[in-house]
Amino acid sequence: MSQLHLLSPLGFSAAGVAAKIKSTGKKDVGLLLCQQMASAAAVFTTNRVFAAPVKIGRLHIASGKLRGVVVNSGNANACTGLQGQRDALEMCQLAGELTGAAATAFLPSSTGIIGHTLPMEKVRAGLRQAAGELGASQDHALGFAEAIMTTDLKRKAAAARFKVGKRTVTLAGVCKGSGMIGPRLALKPSLHATMLAYVTTDAEIAPLLLRKLMAQAAEKSFNAVTVDDQTSTNDTAAILASGMSGAKISDGAGAKRFAAALTEVCQSLAIQIAADGEGASKVVAITVRSAASEAAAKIIARSIANSPLVKCAMHGNDPNWGRILCAAGMVGQPFAQEKCVLRLQNTRVFAKGRPLTFDAAKLSAELNAKQVQVVLDCHLGKGEATCWTCDLSQEYVAINADYHT
Amino acid sequence: MSQLHLLSPLGFSAAGVAAKIKSTGKKDVGLLLCQQMASAAAVFTTNRVFAAPVKIGRLHIASGKLRGVVVNSGNANACTGLQGQRDALEMCQLAGELTGAAATAFLPSSTGIIGHTLPMEKVRAGLRQAAGELGASQDHALGFAEAIMTTDLKRKAAAARFKVGKRTVTLAGVCKGSGMIGPRLALKPSLHATMLAYVTTDAEIAPLLLRKLMAQAAEKSFNAVTVDDQTSTNDTAAILASGMSGAKISDGAGAKRFAAALTEVCQSLAIQIAADGEGASKVVAITVRSAASEAAAKIIARSIANSPLVKCAMHGNDPNWGRILCAAGMVGQPFAQEKCVLRLQNTRVFAKGRPLTFDAAKLSAELNAKQVQVVLDCHLGKGEATCWTCDLSQEYVAINADYHT
Repeated sequence: MSQLHLLSPLGFSAAGVAAKIKSTGKKDVGLLLCQQMASAAAVFTTNRVFAAPVKIGRLHIASGKLRGVVVNSGNANACTGLQGQRDALEMCQLAGELTGAAATAFLPSSTGIIGHTLPMEKVRAGLRQAAGELGASQDHALGFAEAIMTTDLKRKAAAARFKVGKRTVTLAGVCKGSGMIGPRLALKPSLHATMLAYVTTDAEIAPLLLRKLMAQAAEKSFNAVTVDDQTSTNDTAAILASGMSGAKISDGAGAKRFAAALTEVCQSLAIQIAADGEGASKVVAITVRSAASEAAAKIIARSIANSPLVKCAMHGNDPNWGRILCAAGMVGQPFAQEKCVLRLQNTRVFAKGRPLTFDAAKLSAELNAKQVQVVLDCHLGKGEATCWTCDLSQEYVAINADYHT
Repeated sequence: MSQLHLLSPLGFSAAGVAAKIKSTGKKDVGLLLCQQMASAAAVFTTNRVFAAPVKIGRLHIASGKLRGVVVNSGNANACTGLQGQRDALEMCQLAGELTGAAATAFLPSSTGIIGHTLPMEKVRAGLRQAAGELGASQDHALGFAEAIMTTDLKRKAAAARFKVGKRTVTLAGVCKGSGMIGPRLALKPSLHATMLAYVTTDAEIAPLLLRKLMAQAAEKSFNAVTVDDQTSTNDTAAILASGMSGAKISDGAGAKRFAAALTEVCQSLAIQIAADGEGASKVVAITVRSAASEAAAKIIARSIANSPLVKCAMHGNDPNWGRILCAAGMVGQPFAQEKCVLRLQNTRVFAKGRPLTFDAAKLSAELNAKQVQVVLDCHLGKGEATCWTCDLSQEYVAINADYHT
């Protein structure tokens, strides 16, 4: 799969350019285009303080159709009032003019600092350059992925491919996200990083089904990753389906396989976000099993994933499991310490109300890994959920104490 | 007031000794005794994973009467199974034997690492020594306050005094808490640091009224402070009223004044916890006004107080107010950016949907203070709440990445 990229699905082109919105001179304007009107779906932040591009994006996605995505990094265009809305709309208008499409056929996104109006001269120049450089090569995919990065150290991409009859469906995605990560994405605003994710596919699929499958995939991926539990003003995950593979996905086996592939791509992207969390040295996967309900499992897993004490212990390779149980019990969900069993890297550390004897030095050495597994069996029911997080390091503080000034 | 201390209210004595539970050799066993049976009330952690002393304490407080408090630091006696419960009970039994009281007349508390059974030989020797050293001087009060400390750098104490007719009522308290601080204390377990707080008074007051007033005071103080939002397995706040001032507090003006004094003492203690938060350099007071409801104001204030991004910005003296609005909007409470006004150290930075121009260098200099004030007016209703937190520093990570091993 390693050779697959965002532009492998038939019908897509993209570009990423440096428009000097970022003081670093790195790429900061991206354009993703489908050569024909695509079925599209998107989920957005549930933060009540949502950015201007989210407001415009919700309007444009309502038709279930898009031609592309227009995005800048280095500035979130959030808390920028009416001017912000005009600017987000202008990004779409210009993208449309440059590609021969309607403004409403573009989903706008922004990521970066909150509370500053966009430097539109730079955005316009960047967009014109991007439109002139559109292409479907791997370099183009990489350029787009780079243009959406902020504090990310790595580009994030994933892809999957499956067959429907004799036809091959390809899904591919890119995303960004490192800090202000605690997405609670939904089709409609209702509850709670900036994370941006864009998935392309050449499947032929109706917008309503795509919407449903995208929401389901987001729930088990982006909505299950946390760096600092901060639901951004700008979180957006969108999918565009060109239909150009000729493989039709409707209900049934095809939809199941599409859903599985989409979830796989989104989970890979979400785990890459945790791995590249600000200051992170490892990914910690927290699985809660046999909880009273799936909802309880999610809440408990997220509480453990968000505990600064657990995250610091993970940074120190410290098997301080008491902090995990503390986080599990504090969220008001059914939980019984006398029934639960806790495993770190497959070593049982606590069972049925009592601490177990284990080789702390050996376990600490095992925690010194890129991937750490925490498994908590509640023995209360059938609920299960996994949440991905990262360790909390001094580096996270350094990055975030000095970001603005 | 500075000369008032925990043992200023009539009828109390205390001691704190070093029993070598802590490897540092600092004081770690404390005994607080009332010379007669006191009216008593306590609120405990709402964590479903609660420590053995919390379980025993809930049983012992049920009568509304106590003779004293027996406490150790350096070990939380949490997640220690039946042995833990036997040990917590033995602490009470020994305290009772040593002072001529019933075991059930003692409230036990423990704070420290989770998941290790208490070194009971050390605890017993410490308790015997403490019982032999009981006294009512300021040094005794300081010794007790020291014996409950863990990662605390400072002893925490507060006191208040008022008159009922010609009689003087004195209230005084001590507490500990620095990390794993996000108390959600309640009379009964229902929802979510270790913080321990003990208040003494010589008022004469019935247990039921004391219970009600203690719960109310905790809600506006301990339940409104957060360092890392971690509700400990051991959080406990208790009050003992000796009655020895002869000032009778019942409903009416007396109860109002008692409630005000108790809230004042508890708020002072809570703010001292934030100020001494692990790695903290400042206290940040977050006041949310004109929210849709008091409940909404509390949830929004706590979300801001818990945002690692806001806390890092505070550490960097960075007026990055977008993070504050982001945290305000992410918790599903009514919030309208186009109506709200945000002030940092009394400088308006955002109003009615638009960023305001301000002198960032000047404001940054003003944020470099021991006390920072964040005031968010929602202009949606009449709800108001204040929450206290501290900045998040590299030091917090260092303390918590290395605590266990």
